[in-house]
Amino acid sequence: MKTISENRAFGGVQGVYSHNSAATGTEMTFGLFLPEASEEGAVPLVWYLSGLTCTHENAMVKAGAQRWAAEAGIAVVFPDTSPRGTGVANDDAFDLGQGAGFYVNATQKPWAPHFRMWDYVTEELPRVLFGAFPLAEEAQAIMGHSMGGHGALTIGMSFPGRFKSVSAFAPICNPTASDWGRKQFAAYLGTDEAAWAPHDATLLMKKRGFDGPILIDQGTQDQFLDLLKPEALAEAMATTRQGGAFRMQKGYDHSYFFVSSFMEEHMAFHAKAIYG
Amino acid sequence: MKTISENRAFGGVQGVYSHNSAATGTEMTFGLFLPEASEEGAVPLVWYLSGLTCTHENAMVKAGAQRWAAEAGIAVVFPDTSPRGTGVANDDAFDLGQGAGFYVNATQKPWAPHFRMWDYVTEELPRVLFGAFPLAEEAQAIMGHSMGGHGALTIGMSFPGRFKSVSAFAPICNPTASDWGRKQFAAYLGTDEAAWAPHDATLLMKKRGFDGPILIDQGTQDQFLDLLKPEALAEAMATTRQGGAFRMQKGYDHSYFFVSSFMEEHMAFHAKAIYG
Repeated sequence: MKTISENRAFGGVQGVYSHNSAATGTEMTFGLFLPEASEEGAVPLVWYLSGLTCTHENAMVKAGAQRWAAEAGIAVVFPDTSPRGTGVANDDAFDLGQGAGFYVNATQKPWAPHFRMWDYVTEELPRVLFGAFPLAEEAQAIMGHSMGGHGALTIGMSFPGRFKSVSAFAPICNPTASDWGRKQFAAYLGTDEAAWAPHDATLLMKKRGFDGPILIDQGTQDQFLDLLKPEALAEAMATTRQGGAFRMQKGYDHSYFFVSSFMEEHMAFHAKAIYG
Repeated sequence: MKTISENRAFGGVQGVYSHNSAATGTEMTFGLFLPEASEEGAVPLVWYLSGLTCTHENAMVKAGAQRWAAEAGIAVVFPDTSPRGTGVANDDAFDLGQGAGFYVNATQKPWAPHFRMWDYVTEELPRVLFGAFPLAEEAQAIMGHSMGGHGALTIGMSFPGRFKSVSAFAPICNPTASDWGRKQFAAYLGTDEAAWAPHDATLLMKKRGFDGPILIDQGTQDQFLDLLKPEALAEAMATTRQGGAFRMQKGYDHSYFFVSSFMEEHMAFHAKAIYG
């Protein structure tokens, strides 16, 4: 593992590291905020999964998570959203290929060799993190924005017991019924929609739900409401009596001004679920 | 004035606007955060002046000021750091020309026609802001980072009674004795150093000081300590018995991770000076 940078922040350290990933067959970069409390022993870990076009960096510099993570004594990891580099397939569209991994393992050409973000985020990166940093594996939570909210919800529901809580900002809620989903799943997973269902938060909610609290914030002025389909997941959460809250935030859009406005409450939500 | 964007943030609005500036003879862009309290009447205004290479955008997305400004019911303006565009002089160096206005009125070729950031920030932009937005002219404070810290200190001391308080993150403290200063002042103001003195915070501190509290934070791991010369201003503040605090922050560097780490305290400092 290589250290790209380390900056003191809020009494802790905001680091950026890279490593050779077996899952993606590329060098992968991630950000990790370690609070001051990590100098004394292992600390809880919150995963922050980012949205379309983002790298490890966007949320790290714009979401304002470190202030609240430091206060709660919690680490935050910011993975990249796809494999990158020469020899890695790409597409001219911003919502397919590099920067748009959708947190799945691609099975189709030309994506299959490298686009294995599901394995990367759920298997390989956890091993890297828990092997190298003072992090408490039994105290994890997961959150994300937009495509990363989709990732947080689907991963959270797919690994019962791993995460104490799940939260999302303006998540892609029902990708099998949206152009943010159908296009990418067809490209990455093929046309058999049976392979798509495990990656749809609304379908997963109806099938199994999440064994802990969920918090979702969605801006009412979000320019992508038609693609995100919040109503599908809200309905599923209410129908299945999923514990948690689905909040419509008046006047907010899809930007990081929205994310940062509610980061304090999301981090407090995860801290409560982790510490009890 | 043109509205470039408006995003809801922390219950208020983060706007970006542009206007034709008579001072610089160019179109100038600025960010303005208005807290929810501004819907009820005029609110205090904190100026945030940015550093080398920055536009209006850097602090607006990375400094984390809005959270604390919203809580205190205070607006924050983020001016650009220089004129820009075709026909505006520039230099290959990152610390001269566009992005490096140094908050002075240039008198020398090729800079004189447009590089008039002193007049822009101290005269024209205030008129624009107080004419167009619900801002309380009698309740202002000023802060900045690096070159913007230099701007905040020199402007703050040059307009007694205008600002309730001044703060800076890693300011350029003594430009007449530093390569961050001598180079630019020679280019913008000419070789007569008498014209430089009104733009040196340490010299101004010794001459007149500031009629309110000053707060300065400086990271001990700042990669530019030799250029910033914090010791000169710290000595001048102590010698002149200037009210305020000069704090060395262990382990912090020059980045926005440093700025954002102490933004909460700076905004609380200004709120206290404004509200009493």
